[in-house]
Amino acid sequence: MAVASTNGPICDPDINLAARMLELLRDATRDGAGVTRAAYGAGEQLAHDMVKEEAVRMGLDVAIDATGNLYVTMRGSDPNAKTVIIGSHMDSVPIGGNYDGAAGVIAGLAVLSGWHRAGFRPRSNVAVMAIRAEESNWFPYSYIGSKGALGLLPSEALDVQRSDTGRSLRDHMFEAGFDPDSVAAGVAHVKTGETLAYIELHIEQGPVLIGADRPVSLVTGIRGSFRYRHARIIGEYAHSGAVPRAFRRDAVSAASELVTRLNAEWVAMEADGADLTFTVGIFSTDPVQHAFSKIAGEVSLSIDVRSHVPDFLEDMHERLTRCARETARKYNVTVELGPKTASQPALMDESILTTFRKSMSDLGLDSFEMASGAGHDAAVFANAGIPTIMLFVRNQNGSHNPDEAMEMDDFRLAINLLAAGVERLVD
Amino acid sequence: MAVASTNGPICDPDINLAARMLELLRDATRDGAGVTRAAYGAGEQLAHDMVKEEAVRMGLDVAIDATGNLYVTMRGSDPNAKTVIIGSHMDSVPIGGNYDGAAGVIAGLAVLSGWHRAGFRPRSNVAVMAIRAEESNWFPYSYIGSKGALGLLPSEALDVQRSDTGRSLRDHMFEAGFDPDSVAAGVAHVKTGETLAYIELHIEQGPVLIGADRPVSLVTGIRGSFRYRHARIIGEYAHSGAVPRAFRRDAVSAASELVTRLNAEWVAMEADGADLTFTVGIFSTDPVQHAFSKIAGEVSLSIDVRSHVPDFLEDMHERLTRCARETARKYNVTVELGPKTASQPALMDESILTTFRKSMSDLGLDSFEMASGAGHDAAVFANAGIPTIMLFVRNQNGSHNPDEAMEMDDFRLAINLLAAGVERLVD
Repeated sequence: MAVASTNGPICDPDINLAARMLELLRDATRDGAGVTRAAYGAGEQLAHDMVKEEAVRMGLDVAIDATGNLYVTMRGSDPNAKTVIIGSHMDSVPIGGNYDGAAGVIAGLAVLSGWHRAGFRPRSNVAVMAIRAEESNWFPYSYIGSKGALGLLPSEALDVQRSDTGRSLRDHMFEAGFDPDSVAAGVAHVKTGETLAYIELHIEQGPVLIGADRPVSLVTGIRGSFRYRHARIIGEYAHSGAVPRAFRRDAVSAASELVTRLNAEWVAMEADGADLTFTVGIFSTDPVQHAFSKIAGEVSLSIDVRSHVPDFLEDMHERLTRCARETARKYNVTVELGPKTASQPALMDESILTTFRKSMSDLGLDSFEMASGAGHDAAVFANAGIPTIMLFVRNQNGSHNPDEAMEMDDFRLAINLLAAGVERLVD
Repeated sequence: MAVASTNGPICDPDINLAARMLELLRDATRDGAGVTRAAYGAGEQLAHDMVKEEAVRMGLDVAIDATGNLYVTMRGSDPNAKTVIIGSHMDSVPIGGNYDGAAGVIAGLAVLSGWHRAGFRPRSNVAVMAIRAEESNWFPYSYIGSKGALGLLPSEALDVQRSDTGRSLRDHMFEAGFDPDSVAAGVAHVKTGETLAYIELHIEQGPVLIGADRPVSLVTGIRGSFRYRHARIIGEYAHSGAVPRAFRRDAVSAASELVTRLNAEWVAMEADGADLTFTVGIFSTDPVQHAFSKIAGEVSLSIDVRSHVPDFLEDMHERLTRCARETARKYNVTVELGPKTASQPALMDESILTTFRKSMSDLGLDSFEMASGAGHDAAVFANAGIPTIMLFVRNQNGSHNPDEAMEMDDFRLAINLLAAGVERLVD
């Protein structure tokens, strides 16, 4: 048994395998400037096949569930011990980056391969899970793979259509060789009671680690959200020169002031220690009716608020409705927030976090923790009651674009942390 | 000679003629819900023909200039006296209202017809002028008719194309029987030195007289403007959940705060007695790139500022550039105001205003004065050095739409004021 260092993981993870697989995967799924691995498409399948090949090479168990998720399992020495899952997804957005998703699966394989070559056998089963269809660009539905694995995918989700083919998830799933009927019946492959932990390594999709000069972070929670995707502010079109301020019902002025006030509320909440984001990504007058010489009679806008703490979401929602009411009165306009959608925040497991904090310290890594603003499969496992944590790896230029830029040195540190933490868990 | 009342005009204007002509004109140019009188089109020509018919009936002089403007002149008793012009335009926007423009020409005819039937002869020539092509919906060029009359239409303006036909102003002018070459050569029909005054009666295009419960107003000036029709705020697209506030370059937040601050500047200037309008009629994120889950990397917006006082325009422009600079710095975005266009304010003639103030008082009308936010041919005459004033008539529902709603009682009061004021001028 090769011992890496006094304070590192028991076995050196197979970093070379990880680097090689990332390179092969990039070459095989290159599409113009980036990579494309459509959910239930050729690129995703190719990635799953690469993972399976490594499993066969190492003589590990391979299983594929009804949804098409792949599990590569190293059997543990204690048949009664619960399973640890190291998972992430293998699909990408169109013309996306190589690391978003795939890095987490490949990191898990590097850990197993390190154990394999060192002859190490964990006490629990440790499964690397390659998850299907995480990116909602393909099917407009969130977390198809992980929900399917847990038997939690509603049968109506099978009717959603893939954006590029127009064909249903059911068709694509069936055509790829899987079993949509079992998925619809809610058959679970991953059982909460039999799962010790779900651990997901992922590139950070924002600039926080870059800004903090840290290679890796523990994730304390995954932000939930509430959203008004189609809010409208309705005033009255009128002549820009002939109508004095007192007579105006100006939708642009009202919407602008609402955004400005909500930004101020965000600043105030942050000053009180709240962690959240507030974003108006869409703000548009009506191209058919607007004109530079007309007071705007209507604005469409989106509102997206995220936090990993339900109280902060509620607080911001109260501030939003109050500001909307006051702005409507001030500008004599109507604010129609429209349909609200929401997702639950997910808290990471404190006991597993404690384990990984020790491993971080063992590895000489400065402690660093943050909430995930983006959603991840990890939220589905956490909300299903499986103790869950995530590791973020520093990455430049955001994600969902070809310019993702994770350094291999950072990836190596993160895989070491993953290995060390899981070794502690299965000890 | 019929004397109307001790304090009214010397001769009762021919209100019945005015009412009848408006009705005939509406019936003859009806188009769906409203009326359509295209510049150099059939509806405008029909309106000019109706005016000419009345001139012939009264035995008045008829002249048509190279641009196609029509002049119906009652010769004055003093051949050396300068001419008073009562003018407005006869074209309308597509599916527009019946009163915008035509009311002013018809009001002038009602005055002449009143004098004609009473046997009154003014000392000066008094000409009713039916102006061509005021509405820039047809040809994207402002004040073609009045500029042509003054020999001020640049020859390149003859190349602009009519929005519905795609054919040039030159073609349309020529086809209608006029003389684009003389227009291009700058031949003036209306000569500043020979013109005592230009007087334009027009419906108010805003709600001020309605709000003030006044039937008629003197106009103190016509607002000029500066405009940035294609301003852009450029930030950076990023994930709405994963990017904390400090790392954002949010174009929507920056643009919203800029609009909100400029509204506050407007309020502050008004509190200091400045008369102006500030309007952002267009405010749009990029429909190709925006998403509810993305921080916006770009906003396009228009800025329109109007005032009849050049100092107020300058002051607001300084505030705009300062706020734009500060907002850009605060949000780490770029503000590109883009090309600026501007039009000169026009001040109305103080001596003619004084004359009409007396007539207002004679008629028992409460004094009321306001700036015109919309542009009018009157601005061209004023800026050419001709003493100019305008009268506004109360009108509901704005203009440039079929719902213009001038009351005949208000129109009658305004024509009385026009007659009384002109009688004082030519006395």
